[in-house]
Amino acid sequence: MKPIMSKSEAAELVRSARVRHGLSWAQIAEKLGTPLVWTTAALLGQHPMSPEQADTVCGMLELDDTVAEALRTQPSRGTDPQVMADPTIYRFSEALAVYGPALKELIHEEFGDGIMSAINFKVDVERRSDPEGDRVVVTFDGKFLDYRW
Amino acid sequence: MKPIMSKSEAAELVRSARVRHGLSWAQIAEKLGTPLVWTTAALLGQHPMSPEQADTVCGMLELDDTVAEALRTQPSRGTDPQVMADPTIYRFSEALAVYGPALKELIHEEFGDGIMSAINFKVDVERRSDPEGDRVVVTFDGKFLDYRW
Amino acid sequence: MKPIMSKSEAAELVRSARVRHGLSWAQIAEKLGTPLVWTTAALLGQHPMSPEQADTVCGMLELDDTVAEALRTQPSRGTDPQVMADPTIYRFSEALAVYGPALKELIHEEFGDGIMSAINFKVDVERRSDPEGDRVVVTFDGKFLDYRW
Amino acid sequence: MKPIMSKSEAAELVRSARVRHGLSWAQIAEKLGTPLVWTTAALLGQHPMSPEQADTVCGMLELDDTVAEALRTQPSRGTDPQVMADPTIYRFSEALAVYGPALKELIHEEFGDGIMSAINFKVDVERRSDPEGDRVVVTFDGKFLDYRW
Amino acid sequence: MKPIMSKSEAAELVRSARVRHGLSWAQIAEKLGTPLVWTTAALLGQHPMSPEQADTVCGMLELDDTVAEALRTQPSRGTDPQVMADPTIYRFSEALAVYGPALKELIHEEFGDGIMSAINFKVDVERRSDPEGDRVVVTFDGKFLDYRW
Amino acid sequence: MKPIMSKSEAAELVRSARVRHGLSWAQIAEKLGTPLVWTTAALLGQHPMSPEQADTVCGMLELDDTVAEALRTQPSRGTDPQVMADPTIYRFSEALAVYGPALKELIHEEFGDGIMSAINFKVDVERRSDPEGDRVVVTFDGKFLDYRW
Amino acid sequence: MKPIMSKSEAAELVRSARVRHGLSWAQIAEKLGTPLVWTTAALLGQHPMSPEQADTVCGMLELDDTVAEALRTQPSRGTDPQVMADPTIYRFSEALAVYGPALKELIHEEFGDGIMSAINFKVDVERRSDPEGDRVVVTFDGKFLDYRW
Amino acid sequence: MKPIMSKSEAAELVRSARVRHGLSWAQIAEKLGTPLVWTTAALLGQHPMSPEQADTVCGMLELDDTVAEALRTQPSRGTDPQVMADPTIYRFSEALAVYGPALKELIHEEFGDGIMSAINFKVDVERRSDPEGDRVVVTFDGKFLDYRW
Amino acid sequence: MKPIMSKSEAAELVRSARVRHGLSWAQIAEKLGTPLVWTTAALLGQHPMSPEQADTVCGMLELDDTVAEALRTQPSRGTDPQVMADPTIYRFSEALAVYGPALKELIHEEFGDGIMSAINFKVDVERRSDPEGDRVVVTFDGKFLDYRW
Amino acid sequence: MKPIMSKSEAAELVRSARVRHGLSWAQIAEKLGTPLVWTTAALLGQHPMSPEQADTVCGMLELDDTVAEALRTQPSRGTDPQVMADPTIYRFSEALAVYGPALKELIHEEFGDGIMSAINFKVDVERRSDPEGDRVVVTFDGKFLDYRW
Repeated sequence: MKPIMSKSEAAELVRSARVRHGLSWAQIAEKLGTPLVWTTAALLGQHPMSPEQADTVCGMLELDDTVAEALRTQPSRGTDPQVMADPTIYRFSEALAVYGPALKELIHEEFGDGIMSAINFKVDVERRSDPEGDRVVVTFDGKFLDYRW
Repeated sequence: MKPIMSKSEAAELVRSARVRHGLSWAQIAEKLGTPLVWTTAALLGQHPMSPEQADTVCGMLELDDTVAEALRTQPSRGTDPQVMADPTIYRFSEALAVYGPALKELIHEEFGDGIMSAINFKVDVERRSDPEGDRVVVTFDGKFLDYRW
Repeated sequence: MKPIMSKSEAAELVRSARVRHGLSWAQIAEKLGTPLVWTTAALLGQHPMSPEQADTVCGMLELDDTVAEALRTQPSRGTDPQVMADPTIYRFSEALAVYGPALKELIHEEFGDGIMSAINFKVDVERRSDPEGDRVVVTFDGKFLDYRW
Repeated sequence: MKPIMSKSEAAELVRSARVRHGLSWAQIAEKLGTPLVWTTAALLGQHPMSPEQADTVCGMLELDDTVAEALRTQPSRGTDPQVMADPTIYRFSEALAVYGPALKELIHEEFGDGIMSAINFKVDVERRSDPEGDRVVVTFDGKFLDYRW
Repeated sequence: MKPIMSKSEAAELVRSARVRHGLSWAQIAEKLGTPLVWTTAALLGQHPMSPEQADTVCGMLELDDTVAEALRTQPSRGTDPQVMADPTIYRFSEALAVYGPALKELIHEEFGDGIMSAINFKVDVERRSDPEGDRVVVTFDGKFLDYRW
Repeated sequence: MKPIMSKSEAAELVRSARVRHGLSWAQIAEKLGTPLVWTTAALLGQHPMSPEQADTVCGMLELDDTVAEALRTQPSRGTDPQVMADPTIYRFSEALAVYGPALKELIHEEFGDGIMSAINFKVDVERRSDPEGDRVVVTFDGKFLDYRW
Repeated sequence: MKPIMSKSEAAELVRSARVRHGLSWAQIAEKLGTPLVWTTAALLGQHPMSPEQADTVCGMLELDDTVAEALRTQPSRGTDPQVMADPTIYRFSEALAVYGPALKELIHEEFGDGIMSAINFKVDVERRSDPEGDRVVVTFDGKFLDYRW
Repeated sequence: MKPIMSKSEAAELVRSARVRHGLSWAQIAEKLGTPLVWTTAALLGQHPMSPEQADTVCGMLELDDTVAEALRTQPSRGTDPQVMADPTIYRFSEALAVYGPALKELIHEEFGDGIMSAINFKVDVERRSDPEGDRVVVTFDGKFLDYRW
Repeated sequence: MKPIMSKSEAAELVRSARVRHGLSWAQIAEKLGTPLVWTTAALLGQHPMSPEQADTVCGMLELDDTVAEALRTQPSRGTDPQVMADPTIYRFSEALAVYGPALKELIHEEFGDGIMSAINFKVDVERRSDPEGDRVVVTFDGKFLDYRW
Repeated sequence: MKPIMSKSEAAELVRSARVRHGLSWAQIAEKLGTPLVWTTAALLGQHPMSPEQADTVCGMLELDDTVAEALRTQPSRGTDPQVMADPTIYRFSEALAVYGPALKELIHEEFGDGIMSAINFKVDVERRSDPEGDRVVVTFDGKFLDYRW
């Protein structure tokens, strides 16, 4: 028996097939009817997909069922530290290193002692046109959870 | 001669005086006429303030000129790794570990090869009321910079 | 102006006064009417106390208001890695290294994709007598949060 | 000669076969007559199984004897640090970072100088229904060991 | 389906073919009409190439289209820490450890609060002959970005 | 007897006095007749100064002889890792992570097996005006040293 | 109020007084009637002492009660990593790196699945004379604990 | 030509064959006439074996000469950090973290300035029966080496 | 096309062939007419060899041209940290940790501000017989490079 | 009572007094009649001095007996990792990273399985004049210790 393909191997196949078919992440998300960032993250291995979602994606990308099976499994979430150093990702970490303590102060000021959930949570990325150069706007939107004993 | 007070020592004094005077970060930002997250980050030592800004804050908080002098100096930016592990800050790092590679894919899909600037950049945090529990909404908004030789 | 005393300095003073007054953590918790682990953690600097709680503790322990002021402030949570290596604490980390992946499987099996909250959360520690040697029983009790976009 | 399959490879096969057969960890534990967390941990490679236990599992999951042989071997225990960063597991580590020093104080207060054993030890996880959202309740139950020369 | 070859695998093939064909990086750059350091970095996996560039290189080096496909993909940028310790590369890191804080002071003195972009950026390396021994001259040339909210 | 002041303490005093006297690093370098980056680095503690240089600086900045004594001592060179994470410095490290292996290839191609010296070495930083935004141009210029047994 | 002296500060005073009084650790242990390694470790801050033990030591070494108070407190156990690199201590770590997996195999072969307790545990160090050079003989003696659910 | 099998691969084969033949490490050591811990460590890859020893072991375990060849080679000694975290091995590291500085003091008191050799060294592990539970007794026995210029 | 064999793979083959042919490193160095340490380091992958040198070695060791090709390539120098912990190598690192700062003081005293080159550099190892036990004598011999702007 | 001054504080005072008195390390070593590197290392805190040696040094440098007392104490040996990154010290570490595995091979070839002692050990540094630039020659000379059970 062969074990279920790992989610990172499946992600590599999805990424390759997407490029070869000339499809965008947005087209895949639209076909699935799921949010754009969620869809991309799920296909990169960070969320389990429903059987229907997995089948739809594998149909679009002409990938076989071993990939769909992997897309359905529960992930172990997170990203390799070396990948986190890629400049496109690193800028977000740098922004946190600069603004993290300020965000903490302001969350406590506005909401009291607690956190923004990273589980009951969504992210969106969009382009905002600007005469001085278009802007990347990323929104983190999580339920406030207060420290409650 | 005594050296200029460190920005972390100044931040500690600002933090203490703010609590003792019962002022919010929002009230300080409003008085300064500067954005809320920028103001908080600057007072925590991540941005230099103009002489007028530093004087205004020190006036409000009854802090002497050694603090104002520190607030004016150019910072060495960043946050101690142990502080980054505080749960309120950590949730942002976790979100990046889960969604960072997806954000990278989507930035490249929408804008091409490049990054969201963390320098020509602003952050906002706001409360969005929601019947299932209010939400923390944090917006990262940076100019797109394309890899350009 | 002197800055507000750090929570770790306050914790050192609370710890010292508690020993010198011959009071137990349980006695302090009972006087405050707050849960035992919460009370101990708060006094060690991991939770903010209300003004009344801080005053009550400082009254019992004959500590002055600079300590009470520190106990009221919002903490930056977490523990120095070297302290986490103390054997009494390390055994919990070891148990997680051995059973963490199993707990993850079982949480997903029983509840679906999500986590045990560490914020809407309580811990209890109790002694269970046992003829082969009494047992330390620690209960982690957190609200289930499902990954919900 | 081929070496005995590694326990992590065996765990991958068990995990895959369990999903494909539509069996829960609870059903496997019930069939074996062993505690739920112990069983899951053992199948993930953290405990050696008896020959009978290994054979029963491999029978249920239609895995051949090379897997059973691996399940019987003595493990090298522990979990890869990257896996420990998965949010479902991380929340336990965070809880320890927040409450570990308090648990240490209370163990010493109640039992004297010593530790909770992580060897003469059991863990249980259960669901407690709650109108505000069901809760994950995890119990660590270890024999107290006093520092005894 | 086979996934797209990794950029590091492609880089290994490019490096090997370049040596076997007795071609210099400069000859490849000249043929492509692209800057020398950019070309070398791109072929080592740090920049995506256009289809025409990738085809030209693969033509010169008699590499098949699986390599060209890899050269076109978007990279995850960065270098393994062990490779950064190679003496030829380490000297640059050492120079930064010695002169980094001075460069920061002077950039702020000359330009104000901001950074040299590493994205809108180019590097050049050249040989300067010198009677006491020729010199390696490396120029980092990036657009100044001011911290602008 | 008091030990010689540390070079980092001296640097803090130099930095403070420079700001308070409204002098630029360039003015100090000009007065000393030494290169700009060298001067700044030396005053930040990375190079020993001659007695005359140290006296000149302390005269300009009204610092006493304990500072001059510190400026004359031999340094232990390098920068705290946390300071290296400041964005203005980090961009140079990032550029090395992206272009380091390419620079290595090209140094070997042009010069053979060896390195750019970081000892027989100079750095310059200058502003280049550009209609699309001025540029920071940093030149690393080191003697080539070939691996020679 | 002053906090209780830290155990490391107390250890420094004990170490200093021991040298100045020309007393050996063995003489102190003999006076206390406690085992040699235990006594030394306790005075270095790794075990709490009884009030009588602490008073006896402080009497012998002419240290005041602030030291005795520190010796009585519960320690946070462990040693700074830099101290562990001292050659006299490092040789033990090296021996573990070489023989640790063999000791694990043999403990499991002889006792079954379990560990040597480091809590119900004693250590002894003695000199064994040998014509080829005397030998350091260190005995680790801990109760076997089997993995028992 | 195939390279000599790595010692870790050989160790895996020895471990597997030992289990399948139902032989103990003690039986192998007895057959070889070598000390028990030495033998186990050597077969796990930490010591080179003589050709006769390697042949004897491979004969007992029905392993072919590629294994014997690997057993004869000079090792690179040490153990992967993750394996050092296995609880059975970790307890020894913990004991060193608690007692290491005390052992250092006592070695210096008894022998002067120097170390216990980890090279002219032997280890033994034995079971000591005890009515309160049998004990694991591990003896480190190394020649004293004094710092001698 | 197959990529050029990695230098570590080539080193493994050289090491294996050397043992199987019963040749010493000294015999290989003598045949090549190159210094002993240089030759060994080059064959372990730390220096490029000339085509003639690579062919000579491959001839002596009956290795084919894929190995010779690898021996000719430019290395990425350095050693895996785990290998640096092998006791035979570690003793050199320990000596540096103990004597490094003293060597630095003495180099500066004798030569002024600068370093011993590790590039214009040679190492030798020899045996010196001594009635109390033969000695390993390793000589590091590098050109002095003064910090010269 | 004040604790004995730390060896690092004593080293700072020795270093300062040496500079102020215009004495070289060589002059101090000559006065003491001890080897140069040993003397320097001892005064920097890596070896205990005899009472006579400590008094002689403190007499030469006009340091009081609190320094002499510190010089006599047993050190905890080693150097802070940040100091090891100073370029003058780093070059030795780099040389080990390049030549360490070769030295290991040659020690084993010449002496058998064992190490160069870092305890029965001496180091010397000398200047060798050379028409192409004088050379730093550092000799590590340690007794060979064979792995002997």
